[in-house]
This record gives sequence, structure tokens and C-alpha cells, in this order.
Amino acid sequence: MTKTIGKRTLIFPSRPSVNGFYSVVGEKEAQGPLKDWFDLTIGEGHFGEDSWEKAESKLIETATMGAIEQSKLSLTDINCFFGGDLLNQCISANYALRSLQIPFLGLYGACSTMAESLIAGSVFLDGEFGKNVICSTSSHFCSAERQFRFPLEYGGQRPPTAQWTVTGSGACVLSKTGEGPYITHATIGKVIDAGITDLNNMGAAMAPAACHTLCAFLEDTNTTPQDYDKIFTGDLGSIGKDLLRQLLSDNAITAENLEDCGDLIFDSETQDTHAGGSGCGCSASVLNSYILKQMKQKKLKKILFMATGALMSPTSSLQGESIPAIAHLVQIEI
Amino acid sequence: MTKTIGKRTLIFPSRPSVNGFYSVVGEKEAQGPLKDWFDLTIGEGHFGEDSWEKAESKLIETATMGAIEQSKLSLTDINCFFGGDLLNQCISANYALRSLQIPFLGLYGACSTMAESLIAGSVFLDGEFGKNVICSTSSHFCSAERQFRFPLEYGGQRPPTAQWTVTGSGACVLSKTGEGPYITHATIGKVIDAGITDLNNMGAAMAPAACHTLCAFLEDTNTTPQDYDKIFTGDLGSIGKDLLRQLLSDNAITAENLEDCGDLIFDSETQDTHAGGSGCGCSASVLNSYILKQMKQKKLKKILFMATGALMSPTSSLQGESIPAIAHLVQIEI
Repeated sequence: MTKTIGKRTLIFPSRPSVNGFYSVVGEKEAQGPLKDWFDLTIGEGHFGEDSWEKAESKLIETATMGAIEQSKLSLTDINCFFGGDLLNQCISANYALRSLQIPFLGLYGACSTMAESLIAGSVFLDGEFGKNVICSTSSHFCSAERQFRFPLEYGGQRPPTAQWTVTGSGACVLSKTGEGPYITHATIGKVIDAGITDLNNMGAAMAPAACHTLCAFLEDTNTTPQDYDKIFTGDLGSIGKDLLRQLLSDNAITAENLEDCGDLIFDSETQDTHAGGSGCGCSASVLNSYILKQMKQKKLKKILFMATGALMSPTSSLQGESIPAIAHLVQIEI
Repeated sequence: MTKTIGKRTLIFPSRPSVNGFYSVVGEKEAQGPLKDWFDLTIGEGHFGEDSWEKAESKLIETATMGAIEQSKLSLTDINCFFGGDLLNQCISANYALRSLQIPFLGLYGACSTMAESLIAGSVFLDGEFGKNVICSTSSHFCSAERQFRFPLEYGGQRPPTAQWTVTGSGACVLSKTGEGPYITHATIGKVIDAGITDLNNMGAAMAPAACHTLCAFLEDTNTTPQDYDKIFTGDLGSIGKDLLRQLLSDNAITAENLEDCGDLIFDSETQDTHAGGSGCGCSASVLNSYILKQMKQKKLKKILFMATGALMSPTSSLQGESIPAIAHLVQIEI
């Protein structure tokens, strides 16, 4: 017997509980539609540090400490940290863990990392390897631009399909027991590559992976989108979300209750963010504010959270490779 | 009750079993002292591909398929792949998973990834979330040099403390049941930064992390190094290994049976590899050949495998940061 349902969806009989969560975002995110939901705004992008990378690392550290405080635990109560980020060699998380001093299993799932960390953390707790873990990730517009695209000073034009990397981090404390919200199921994604090569159209690259994982989950659990209050994708943006709807429709699935964290976090019309937000910190900050707060308020009782990641690098793209993508899904209930 | 012993060492009561393992290495590794232990040598570094990065990706894919074949399973029997690599955005693993089509949880632990994958995989199996998983990682001298150091054509001089990135990959199939070797215990590392800033002296940066994890494990289990046939560190190299001995001695611990994968894989005198081998593929290829084969032959019955990772990036180093490091430990028995 394994704790699975259908072909590959995991079930967590012990129902790991989100006992604390915290979000911290940049100035632009704090001017968007979700401004009243975030816990902390850092103002200017350096967050008191002398580089954007160090600022991003401080974002993870701040979100982690906020979540621990909210859960009324202390650092020494945390058995493991599950997380990572978009920067080369995941330095945002690595340097945050230098001061946090929690046992650390580093993850890389690009923008799917928040969901990946919830899965790895739930597997750890449900297997009885600890009582409390941290799940967290981050991104920063400025550190991402210079690593993946161009120096900010260059002022490159962005096509309408481009997304805007969110400056932000979200973290939550998952515990063996608690009052919820609870992680009940998860589907680990496979790498799906639909042949997209346009680095300015991540939504198109990731939508097929989102469709693949969601279809696998619905089939495994014998449910439909209507069985959930909302389905939140990670950061498909407006274009990717429309494409996902189209792909689902090709599979005879209708999901009126589909929302996307990248679509929610900015007002593209007034904030010049084109197809919406992206980056690990996008779904992390939206989950650990807007979504989980609504669950605590019982406005949402049963949701699917599916973060999506584009798994290329600038090197693989220069070598002509298309963009592989992945989507990890967790079911959260209260 | 949690499945831990002491402060933070995990125990795996179900004893996940290594049911298949495979190693594939480059030409230089196949000329070293362990040449008779590896399963496959790729000869020229491109392995039939048109870039070193694609060759590295093929290394993971080849090692994975080899391990699956050895375990007499097929791809569809594998519930999850745990792994990653050193390349930016872990493209070696990401692109390998595109063709393998196994549910994928990407890890980043730099050169500690082989041990990290064994821990994550054992947690998954012991928690009853599946029957078989793959644990794997890779590195490639040429892709690592151009990403972390200089173009090969530049022909930069290397100081005596420098290590040589191993071209290679190792993979194993861990299963819920089998004839062993078995994973029995694990200690997840914390990030330790001793303030080393010299990128050409990774052994010095990683030795303190290795000492920290080994001391935690020995204290938790109330054992001494003499309780194990061998203790294999990941890729400290000759200098890091001597430093680790010194640090252990400062903690009143003697470990005559300490060996290092980076020290074992090359003959520094004749192969011009200075302080020894490094890279994720170093401990991965040595574990999945020399070490596990000796365990199968009962020449080694109880060992500790502790892979070490340096968690900086070229960006963090340029920004003046020191090198944080981590070491993950697993106990393997037959």
C-alpha cells in the first residue's frame, strides 16, 4: 500500500497544517490589486542591502521569520527548510539559510518552487520525520532581469506577451498538527515541453504543463474543477491562463473558477506589466497572503494551488533549446 | 513520535533499498584509479551531442536508464525522480527529465546533491508515497568551467588548491523493498560559512560543513567513526580532507577510515588535478560504482556517505560574499 490515489496523486492522511504564513513584497506589488493582503512592503528594492541579490535573500529570511512568529514557534522548533529560488545556484535561499541555521533541503523548480516546497514538506511531515517545516521561495525583479534578460539600464522594450518578475517572498510553517488550512493531496509534475522557444512568452511554455498536471490530478481523484472553490495557477499570466483554459477545453474540462497569481497581482492596464506577474515570489506571496488569509476566513474552503515553472536557462535558450516546463499541484482545505 | 534519533538525525525504519545503480564518466575519470569500477565511459566530452550542456544532460539520462535496467524495472515503475545539478537553473536534470517523463522534484544542493537526493528519496519511500524512486546528479568539466570560471580556450592557470570538476553522473534506484544496500539513517545539513572567499579552495570552504554534519550525526547516534567500515566525504579533495581531519581532531574525533570521493577518483600526481575531483558527478559516480559495488560484494558493510556542497554563485562571489557550504549524510548498510 502506498499513500497514493489513482496513478500518481499523493494523499496526506495526517493532513499537514499551515500554522503560520507571511508575505513580503516590493513597492510595485504593494500598489497592485492585492495591496491590502500583504504583510510587509519593502519600499525601495534594495531593502537596506547593497545589492539586489542580497535584498532578495533578505526577503526569504524576512518571510520565514514572519511565518515562524505567526505560528508562535521559534527557529529551533523548525526541523527542515524546503525552498529555493530563481537565481543561479539558488543564492537567495542559500544565503538566507546561513543566518537561519535550519536543516536545509534546497529545491529548484523555477516558479513552481512554492508548490514543490509544500509537497516536499508535506511528505516529510506525513512520514513523521519532524513536527514543523518551512516552505518558502522568493524572486526579485532587478536580480532576475539582470540574470535572465538585460541590464536594467539598457531599458529594453518588452513585448505584450512578457511578464514582470515579482519582487517578493512568501513563507509558511507547515506542522504535523494544527487548525489548518491543511494540505490533503498533491500531484508531482512531469517535465512537459511544447516546443515554445520565445523567452518572452513563458505563459505559453507553461500552460501545457499546467494542463498535464491538472488533468492527471482530476483523473486520479475522479473530481472536476467544480469540486473546488478556486483553482489558482502560479504565474501563467493572462495569456497563459487563456491558453490553459483552451487546452482544458480540448480535454473537455471547463474551469470557470480558474485564477492565476500572476494575473491577480498586477493591474496590467495601469502598471505596465503586460501579461502579468511571474517569478517564484509571485505565487509564493499570493498564496501566503490573499489565498491563505481567505481560507482562514473560510471564504475559500477547498482549493487547488498549482505553481508552474519554466525550466530553461539563458544558456539552453542560446543553444536553441525549447522551454521545458513543470507544474506541481497541492490541494488545500480548511 | 517522529522518526528521528538525537536532535535531528532521521531514521528510516523501512530501510529503503538500493536495487540498481549505474555510473557513467568521461575519458579522464576512466584513466584514474577507479577506472575498473565505472559502468560506462563516454570518451570524448561531447558524448555525441553538440554542446557540453547537452552532453551533461545525456549523462544523467544514461545513468538513470542504466540504474533502472539494473534494477529490472521500467521507467513507468518509477514514482519520482530526485535530483539536480550544478548548471544554472539545473538544466542538465531538467532536460533529461523531458525525455524520461518521470514525476520530478528538482533539488539544488551543489555537490551535496547525491546525498540530498538519497535523503529526499528515502523520506518519500519510508513515508509510503511510492515504491521506487531515482536519485541522481551529474557534472561536466567543460560546462562547469565555462559557467563558473573561464572559457576553456583561455587556458587559465590553476592554483594547487583548485579541484577538477568530474565529468560524470551516477544514479540509483531506491525501492521500498529489496536486498540492499539499505539507507538506514540521514542527517540533513545546515549552511555553514567559515568565511572562505577563495573560489579556488572549495575544500577549505566545505570542510567545516562536513565537520558540523558528521559531529551532529555521531552525537545523535552515540557512535564513533570506528563504528563504520568507511566514511566517504563527497568532494573535499586532498586539502579539504586534511582540514576535516584537523577539525574533527579539534572536536576530539579521530577518523582513520575517512576517504574522499574527490581524492579517490584522480591520481593528482599524474593527472594534473591538483587537490582532486569535484562537482556533483564526483560523489555520484564514485558512490554508484566503487562504493556500492563493494557493498554488494560485502567488502564494506556499514558506511557513511556525506556529500558536501559549496553554495555560492559567481555573482555572490563578485559581490564579496564568502562561500556558504552544506553537507548531507546518509548511513548505508548491507
